[in-house]
Formats: sequence, structure tokens, C-alpha cells
Amino acid sequence: MRGKDYKHFEDPNFQEKLVSLCKRRGFVFPSADHYGGLSGSFDYGPVGTQMKKNIKDLWWKTFITSRPDCMGVETPILTKPEVLQASGHIDNFQDPMVECKDCHHRFRADHIQQFVESSKNPKDRLAFPCPKGNSECHGNNLTEIKQFNLLFQTHVGPTAHEGDPSSITYLRPETAQGIFQVFPKVTQFSGQRLPFGLGQMGKSFRNEISPRDFLFRMREFEQLELEYFCEPQEAEQWYQYWINECLSFCNKVGISPDHLKLQHTDSADLAHYSKATCDIQFLFPQGWGELLGIANRGDYDLRVHAEHSKKDFYYKNPDNPEAEKFYPYVIEPSLGLDRLFYATLVSCYHEEKLEDETRVVLKLSEDISPFKFAIFPISKKDPLIDMSMDIWKKCLPYTTMDYGVAGSIGKRYRKQDEIGTKYCITVDFASLEDNAVTVRERDSMKQIRLPITSLVDHIALNKPFDFTTK
Amino acid sequence: MRGKDYKHFEDPNFQEKLVSLCKRRGFVFPSADHYGGLSGSFDYGPVGTQMKKNIKDLWWKTFITSRPDCMGVETPILTKPEVLQASGHIDNFQDPMVECKDCHHRFRADHIQQFVESSKNPKDRLAFPCPKGNSECHGNNLTEIKQFNLLFQTHVGPTAHEGDPSSITYLRPETAQGIFQVFPKVTQFSGQRLPFGLGQMGKSFRNEISPRDFLFRMREFEQLELEYFCEPQEAEQWYQYWINECLSFCNKVGISPDHLKLQHTDSADLAHYSKATCDIQFLFPQGWGELLGIANRGDYDLRVHAEHSKKDFYYKNPDNPEAEKFYPYVIEPSLGLDRLFYATLVSCYHEEKLEDETRVVLKLSEDISPFKFAIFPISKKDPLIDMSMDIWKKCLPYTTMDYGVAGSIGKRYRKQDEIGTKYCITVDFASLEDNAVTVRERDSMKQIRLPITSLVDHIALNKPFDFTTK
Repeated sequence: MRGKDYKHFEDPNFQEKLVSLCKRRGFVFPSADHYGGLSGSFDYGPVGTQMKKNIKDLWWKTFITSRPDCMGVETPILTKPEVLQASGHIDNFQDPMVECKDCHHRFRADHIQQFVESSKNPKDRLAFPCPKGNSECHGNNLTEIKQFNLLFQTHVGPTAHEGDPSSITYLRPETAQGIFQVFPKVTQFSGQRLPFGLGQMGKSFRNEISPRDFLFRMREFEQLELEYFCEPQEAEQWYQYWINECLSFCNKVGISPDHLKLQHTDSADLAHYSKATCDIQFLFPQGWGELLGIANRGDYDLRVHAEHSKKDFYYKNPDNPEAEKFYPYVIEPSLGLDRLFYATLVSCYHEEKLEDETRVVLKLSEDISPFKFAIFPISKKDPLIDMSMDIWKKCLPYTTMDYGVAGSIGKRYRKQDEIGTKYCITVDFASLEDNAVTVRERDSMKQIRLPITSLVDHIALNKPFDFTTK
Repeated sequence: MRGKDYKHFEDPNFQEKLVSLCKRRGFVFPSADHYGGLSGSFDYGPVGTQMKKNIKDLWWKTFITSRPDCMGVETPILTKPEVLQASGHIDNFQDPMVECKDCHHRFRADHIQQFVESSKNPKDRLAFPCPKGNSECHGNNLTEIKQFNLLFQTHVGPTAHEGDPSSITYLRPETAQGIFQVFPKVTQFSGQRLPFGLGQMGKSFRNEISPRDFLFRMREFEQLELEYFCEPQEAEQWYQYWINECLSFCNKVGISPDHLKLQHTDSADLAHYSKATCDIQFLFPQGWGELLGIANRGDYDLRVHAEHSKKDFYYKNPDNPEAEKFYPYVIEPSLGLDRLFYATLVSCYHEEKLEDETRVVLKLSEDISPFKFAIFPISKKDPLIDMSMDIWKKCLPYTTMDYGVAGSIGKRYRKQDEIGTKYCITVDFASLEDNAVTVRERDSMKQIRLPITSLVDHIALNKPFDFTTK
């Protein structure tokens, strides 16, 4: 079998295959394509939606509910200009843009490799050929670089349609700023002691100049962010701690360590708010790219919000009224859910040469796969359907189980392999006699016969199956 | 005890008490208030966020994963104008607005009771006193009614900042339209048979003229919507079915049937897309208001999207190639999560006169409450903390458990009562000797002593406690 050795980065057609599988099986596909599509946004289909929810639930459990020191919050997408003025987004959240003077397409300057290399000499820049390529545009006349702000703007309230400047409101570019707004309430009302974390899951929006690479660079995307507040002198230690927790989370989701590397940012290249930043990079089909980021934001955010709002963002130790108030440091493990979803599919995609066909199988972890089980009546005869539905109903309180009745058993196995279902249960005519079913494991394709009572028992108690006996 | 008889609608201070509890305990509070607030949007604090997630998870389980006929999808918030042109939102999604010519405040005309009553005579309208009231404005000079469109508009892409009309994009006013865009893919790729449902959870946005009544009318809110596609001749039957399922869901969430009523819309008042609509209304502090809506949308949506996009939105029976293609009817049970969250708090809020104080207790269902358990070491001595953390860690895989060490036990009980925690476990000095703990039930305040092994066993196997023995 070629399965063990399949490497996505050695397969020139990989990206095309993955995008096709995602569409065919209902993971994810371009949004609103019946109306010509909307660049940089995607619809998640049934199995994609379930898998995305499973990753979210695992993050929530790992980073929030299974820890005594972390809590969740949820803040709005609509964000007042004052918040983003203080955070620096209105002035600094921008990418360099150039425009072709002939076809008027606009490009992100730092994504054009040769352009970046020639950018020390401004004259070279102006004579650079249009990145659209010769087939679409023959121009070689780009504008100077302009800074393009990535914030989406809208107007809120009953004067919105007249463009009233006082009605300007933004869509948040990150969930983090909302967390900082809630920080004073959590310390003042619940008397939470340091160190503690506030996490948030939710949509963020960035008006990317050129969204690209499937789910990698989207204009609307979901973030899972934790802001972990600690004593300044402990920040370095917590920074290292959260790098390790994030690596361990990638592992839990089922991403192969072979596809990951750490990338520490040189201090000269750090963002204005950051004391240290580390990326966990993933080997995407288009090359290495950021999957998660861990930043030591110092006390930048609490300090600027206190300065701009003239309100109190201090921490005061509730156990010691004599202690001085101060701004805690913040360690931020931040991840883009859509990217993680994409990376998980890439890392779990395998092809195996069987005797007469190539089997595609997503070796998703049981926590993440849209379904852990699928159950098939071998034919559409009523007694088999009834028996299948009966088992399905018995198991459903304990697990996730797909139900499939259409197509040959072989086709149904292929479908479940492609959506990563770990176990397929077949109800056949013999089942009506012996009250037993066939259970087939995804990766080994081994099968065992189990009495229905034993199957339900295994599922209810989460007991592993033994496939070594056959 | 007055508890049994407490009725929120008889308590003139109820709304104020609830809002105060929500802020004090970290359920929900106005957003960005350090920057003057953002009307109609709220931050959910730690316990509110967990309770909201619990309601979402229960909805997802009830409406999606526990049913063989329903699946989830997730579509973007950013929506192309073409979609909302077809659906009728660009032309029809509006509320009547009037403006005071003196103070220039704007009001929703149909929310001003006397204005509505006088609106048959246009001359009365113009002389109507400003609804701001005499203290703020003495004007009695309103404008004519203008229709105000509730869609939020933004600009997408690299020409956004120049206001390029072709870059106009909207924030979705409902999650339903995204589901209709996905419908053709689900039928064509997965060959799904009627009847089936596609559900979605996510944020929607409406630029309300005057957001009000706490979480009742927000500008940014979360929807849980199911579009259930069926044969046209079965639509009436499924419409009734989903009304009952929604009532049963309200019950599951813990809303008292005494606070609910059904309100069928007269056919003359139906929205342009609807064949029948029924509200489940809740007795909010401000009066009866819509909590859930169930609509028979007929084939309106699929038909208009097919007409506008010139694409195929038909259903074809995959089991019968001879059968004619047609547009299924759609039954839509739709609920606003923030409203449901609000209604749940209202319905579960109780006050009880104890000997020397009034106890406030949220009698939340175990599925919904932020925590099912809380554990307290009776003092901050290390052995008690260690024992508490040890129990906490053993139980956490099976349940949700808060941990509290600050304040007297009485204060900790009050806090847990106010956030709806069903059981409080106290680890005291005797626990170090007898390896047993005290378990206290929220509603009866009865206590039992249980060996730690038995406690963990009860929690792991979800076995009910017996409080009748004492």
C-alpha cells in the first residue's frame, strides 16, 4: 500500500484533489457561487460544519472548561472606532498595495516576489510588469505603493444611510480587543486572581487585498483566541508554556508533527504591541504558512485602552489591599479556525493504492471527524432499515453516527473513508438471524462481527474494539 | 417560602434586578461601556457565555445531530447584494421612521402607541409631541413617515475605501438566505431525499432604529434557524409538527409553559414570503413578545433565487429519474438566541424569603446552567485545596464544575444560587478524616454527606442523588 508514504507536498495535483473532495462531500465550497461567488468567503456544508464544530468544542474544552484558570467571553463583531483607534488598528492595520495603471487590478505589493526584491529601487517598481500575467494584461506600469487599511467599515443607527461620520462603526479585525474591554469587569466583579485567561471564539473580518489559497487567507474567518493575563515577571514562562500547549493541541486535532515547525519572530520584526511572537507554521499545499501565533503582548493593550478611555484597566490583588495596582502582561495564543480546519484536512488526507483502485481516506482523529460511526442496512428492505434505525437510536446518546442507505456497500465505504468516519457498521440479512453486525475499521479496513448488544455496550461505555482477532 | 409564588411580571423592580444580577455575576452587560457603549450590543461574561453555548449545543443536538433528517451548514455573514435583491430584503426590509424636527432624534413610528392610533389622519401626525419627552425636548413637530432599510452595508475589496458601488456588500439580516444558497449543493452532491432540514447557528445584523428592552431588540444578535424542505402537500403537517417541536424545546431549556403562548398571524398580515406564520410568545418584563417564529415559507425562496440567478434550485427525486423536478416547500422554525437566553433567565429567576434575607435563585435546567456543580474547600488550607482540586479533576471529564475559594460558605452558596449551579460540594476538615463531602441541592437547599468515591461514581455515571434521606 502506498498509504503510509503518501505526502501531500509531493503530489502536484493535491490542492485540486482536496478542493474537489471538499465540494463533492460537502466540507466547504465557494460561497454564493450561483450569484458569481464572493471572493474570500466560503460555505461550510454538512460534514464540514460538523467537523468545524468538533474542533471548536475541543478547543473550548482544552483551553476553557477543563482548566480552573480560564473562562470564556463573547463580545460583539460591531466595534466602536474609539476601541480600534486605541489599539492602533485604524492607523496601522494595513498592507502595501499597488495598482496596474493599464488594467486597474490591485495587488498586495509584498506578495509579488520580484517586486519585493526590486523595491529598494523605486524606478524599477514603476516599470514592473502587471502580475495578472500576459494573457490578461500586457501592462508594465504599476503605481507607487499605497497603504491599504484592512478594516471593514459600516454605519450604525438611524442616520446610517446619509453616511453620518458619527455613525461609523467597524467589523472587528480580531476577537482580542473585545476581551480587553471585558477584562476590568472580570477582575472587578468576580475578583479573579492572576494568572487567568479569557478566551473567545468568533468571526473576525479583514478586507484582504487579494484573498487566496483556499481557506488560508479569507476576508471573513473564525478565530479562537485566548488572552492569558499574568504577573509581568512570569510572562516569559507563560509564553513558553502556551507555545507547548498549542503544539499539543495541534497534535490532539490530528495534525502530523512532520507538517509543523516553530518560527520565532526576530525582535526587529515584531509588531508594535508585541514583546515576543512565535508562529506555529504548517506545510500548506502552497508552502509553509502561519497556523497559530503565540504573542507576548506585554501590557500594551490594557495600557492604551486605559489611556484612551481614561478608565481603569488595572489589576488589583483582591487578597492584599496594600498591594499596588498594575497592568498584567498578556500572553495570546491565537488561531484561525478555518486555517486549522484546512491544515487538518491536508494533514489527514491519504491515498492508498489498492488492487484495482486508489482509496482516498481522511485519517481524522475520532474527536474531530464529522461522524465516528456510520450504519448501513445492506438493502432497502424494511426489516433491515428498522434494525439499523433501532441501533442508530440506541447509540445516538453516546456518539455521532451517520446513516446511509443509497448505493452499494463499497461506495458507501468510500464515502465514509473520504469524510473520515472511523467505523462502519453493516446490517445484513444474517443480522436478522444472529442479531450481530459487521464493524469495519477505517484505516486497516479490518472487519469483525459483533452481537448488537455488545456493539451498543462498546459505544455507550466508549470501549475500544478489538480488530486483532481476525 | 415566597419562592413558589414569585412572579416576575408582578414585581415592578424585576427588570432592574435582573440587569443588575447579569452584570454582577458576569452573564451579560452593555458592550464597550468604557468608551461610552454601543447601543444595541452586549458583551457576554464568563457564565453568560457558557450558558449561551449550552443552549446552542442543546439546540444543535435536538434539531441536528439527534435526527437522521437534519444537517448543519455554515455560511458567511458578508452577503452579496444579488442574494438580498432576490430575497426582497433590499426593497422590503424596512421599518417606518419619523424624526423630531426640533431635536432631530429619530423614532420607529410603529412603536409610538398614540402615533399609531392617530396615523390615519396625517395632520395629527405632524403635530405629535416628540417621544423623547418634555424633559429632553419640547418639540411637537414630527416629520412624515420615511421607510428606513435595516440592512447594514459595507464595502469589500481593494476599491472599498473609494466607495466603489460595485464593492457594496451587506451583513446578513438572517441566516436563512445562506441556507437557501447551499440547498442545491446538498441535493445535487449528497442526493438527500425529502423531507430534510438544513440548520444554521450564527450572527445576524439589523440596523434597528431604536434597539431596546435589554436583549430583546439588538442590532447584532445570534440566530438558530432550521429550513425544513418537504413535499408541498406535506407542508401543513410539518408546520404543525415544528410548532410542537419548538414548544417542546422551550420546555427542555427550562422555560415555564405559564410564560408562553401561541400567536397565529392572520393571513392578511403575513409577510410577502409566508403562507402561514406562528409566533411562540414569551411574557418578557416589558410584556408579551416573540420568542420563536415558525413560518411556512412555501417555495418562495427557492423560486426567487432560481429566477434571479438563472440557476437550478429544483429538487429531483434521486430514487425516481422519471419524476418531475419541483420546488419543495420550506418550514422554518427560527429563534433568536439572545432572546431565548433572556427569556430563560426571566423564567428561571426566583426570589425566596428566608428567615433573615431574600434568596435569589436561578432555577436553570441542568443542561443549560453554566455549571452543574461547584466545589468549595471550606478554608484556604493546603490539604483542603488539594483534596478539592483532586475531586475537581476526577469529575471534570464528565460534567462542568466551578471552583470557589473566596468568601464565606454562605456567600459562595448565594453566588452559585444566582448563577444557577444545581449542586454545591463542600470539602471540610472532617473530609480529611472520613473521605466524605457535603452535597447541597440548589432548590431545596437540602444537604447530604457522601463518600468521595460515591460522589465521583454518581457524576461519572450521571446517577441522580437522593436527598430524601435527610
